[in-house]
Amino acid sequence: MDISSRRIAVLSPVAWRTPPRAYGAWETVASNITEGLVARGWDVTLFATKESITNAKLVGFTEKGYEEDKTQIPLVSTCLHISKAMERADEFDLIHNNFDYLPLTYLPFIKTPMLTTIHGFSDPDILRVYRDHKDSYYVSISDADRNEELPYLATVYNGIDLSNLTFRPNPGDKLVHYGRIHADKGTHLAIEVAKKCGRDLIIAGIIQDQEYFDNLVRPHINDTSIKFIGPVNPVQRDALLKEAYAVVHLNTIPERFGLVMAESMAAGVPVIAMDLGSCREVIKDGQTGYLVNNVAEAVEAVGKIERIERKKCRRHVEENFTIDRMVSKYEKVYEEIFRREAQKNKDFR
Amino acid sequence: MDISSRRIAVLSPVAWRTPPRAYGAWETVASNITEGLVARGWDVTLFATKESITNAKLVGFTEKGYEEDKTQIPLVSTCLHISKAMERADEFDLIHNNFDYLPLTYLPFIKTPMLTTIHGFSDPDILRVYRDHKDSYYVSISDADRNEELPYLATVYNGIDLSNLTFRPNPGDKLVHYGRIHADKGTHLAIEVAKKCGRDLIIAGIIQDQEYFDNLVRPHINDTSIKFIGPVNPVQRDALLKEAYAVVHLNTIPERFGLVMAESMAAGVPVIAMDLGSCREVIKDGQTGYLVNNVAEAVEAVGKIERIERKKCRRHVEENFTIDRMVSKYEKVYEEIFRREAQKNKDFR
Repeated sequence: MDISSRRIAVLSPVAWRTPPRAYGAWETVASNITEGLVARGWDVTLFATKESITNAKLVGFTEKGYEEDKTQIPLVSTCLHISKAMERADEFDLIHNNFDYLPLTYLPFIKTPMLTTIHGFSDPDILRVYRDHKDSYYVSISDADRNEELPYLATVYNGIDLSNLTFRPNPGDKLVHYGRIHADKGTHLAIEVAKKCGRDLIIAGIIQDQEYFDNLVRPHINDTSIKFIGPVNPVQRDALLKEAYAVVHLNTIPERFGLVMAESMAAGVPVIAMDLGSCREVIKDGQTGYLVNNVAEAVEAVGKIERIERKKCRRHVEENFTIDRMVSKYEKVYEEIFRREAQKNKDFR
Repeated sequence: MDISSRRIAVLSPVAWRTPPRAYGAWETVASNITEGLVARGWDVTLFATKESITNAKLVGFTEKGYEEDKTQIPLVSTCLHISKAMERADEFDLIHNNFDYLPLTYLPFIKTPMLTTIHGFSDPDILRVYRDHKDSYYVSISDADRNEELPYLATVYNGIDLSNLTFRPNPGDKLVHYGRIHADKGTHLAIEVAKKCGRDLIIAGIIQDQEYFDNLVRPHINDTSIKFIGPVNPVQRDALLKEAYAVVHLNTIPERFGLVMAESMAAGVPVIAMDLGSCREVIKDGQTGYLVNNVAEAVEAVGKIERIERKKCRRHVEENFTIDRMVSKYEKVYEEIFRREAQKNKDFR
């Protein structure tokens, strides 16, 4: 396939900058896909906030993300971003949608095929839109996150940028918990584990649920054994992981993919994760971390961390969760879409 | 104009049934427009929830409104409703949009002209979408509710269904306050007025802001002098207005139109309203009620209610705020749109 002749539009969300300054999982992945495609010679246009940073062509309609500029009504920015991108559909051979279900409602009006990476079902009700467009193309970000009613072309694991993740052969002495601070991510359980192990804990990330933070996290913060350092950018995250003996990721709901786990392992840090959703696809149990079912098992896992070879953690990421690996998988998916579309056009002739 | 050959799509919201069982201002107006057009011989298709009631052709995609079925994510129902209606745009000569700004983002993909009745700017930021489609057609629901940056074809006041509003020549002895319970509507001020006048007050409507209700309304309810009876359907509303000496409507933000004021006057009940926004367009000060600027003036106005001729209140509505009056105004607007569209097509030939 002569890829340079194929024009790809990557549709990123507009909640945050692409790539985000700190938090912004979908924008991170959209950025990694975009930069990875450009590096491999594709002609890519990124639809994102105007201040986004990319080696692709950038098209934006709002300066900043609506999470960074609270004068914006999120739906206003979202629907303008999507509809204006869709107006330009004819300029592309494929639209790679990383911005949830709303873009699908413009499908009846455009001829360009759309691939949607389903980054998560925020509520079962959003399935109504996906079901309504089953003739479109879907990718799941883990086998665990698939919905059985939908047809998928493939599972493509998220790829992460290793340049910001230094491999640390020697363990730090602290437990680390980071991501968004929310009951879903089990920050309160990480605190319990740290206390039971008698190990210091550093917590980092945006507070997504203030009530949860105020009630179940803040009371434990003491700036010595339990520290909270707020959101971290990639450089700060790299420094944070240097301190880590292990990352404690006791998600209370099924993980969809789990960027935090891949990032931790990339730095050589073993991950203790709840065995829910995609965790067993991302972590090799007993080799790059431990899958557990409760706090007691997590405490036990901390005691076994030294059995994990930190080099193996890094290698596992290099082999499975790099941008290059992700993009080469997407290239296969794109190829399949182009094949099917060519077939369709033949059928209609 | 041979109206029977013109096919009109009326796009109603899907928050509530059309017409709503109790609260649902936009659905009420969309229903009144639809039924009024049908009565005058137009070929109308109403896009609304499936359980809606109409003499037009009904097209729906969800059984119930998302406010009446909390398993629905509002945006999912909204975007499916709108996009599926837009898919059928070619079947119509005009789409009359009563469902806010999101439908406008599909305009680049359809050929049918769209008239949007702007029922309100929930936030200044939604102007971004309206500004982006200035070549579309807009109607305001009062002169006060106009935004100076937008071109409007006309102001068309909302028309109400008088069949559910019995004219009561004799006043009741209570003050009445109804609508949605929210600081915007000044429920707390109505209570203050009632207490200062020593008159009983009946409050009715959906609680839109629970915290406001709990803090500023509930503590005053005693089931004798200050009663709260919850939402009312049209039949209950008619009974409620029978009790009314006056309706107290001390809105704290500019009113956009004010269905409550028109309904009250239709029953012969004078309205005491804050002189903000459209109130002075709906009420004839000193003739069908009083415009006031604060609680003290409202108390004074209660003392002057007997100077108002209740027949005049009714007549004012009959002459200005009936469905027939509204629909005949919309007919003129439609005619103008058809004229402009024909001109455009000529220009392009």
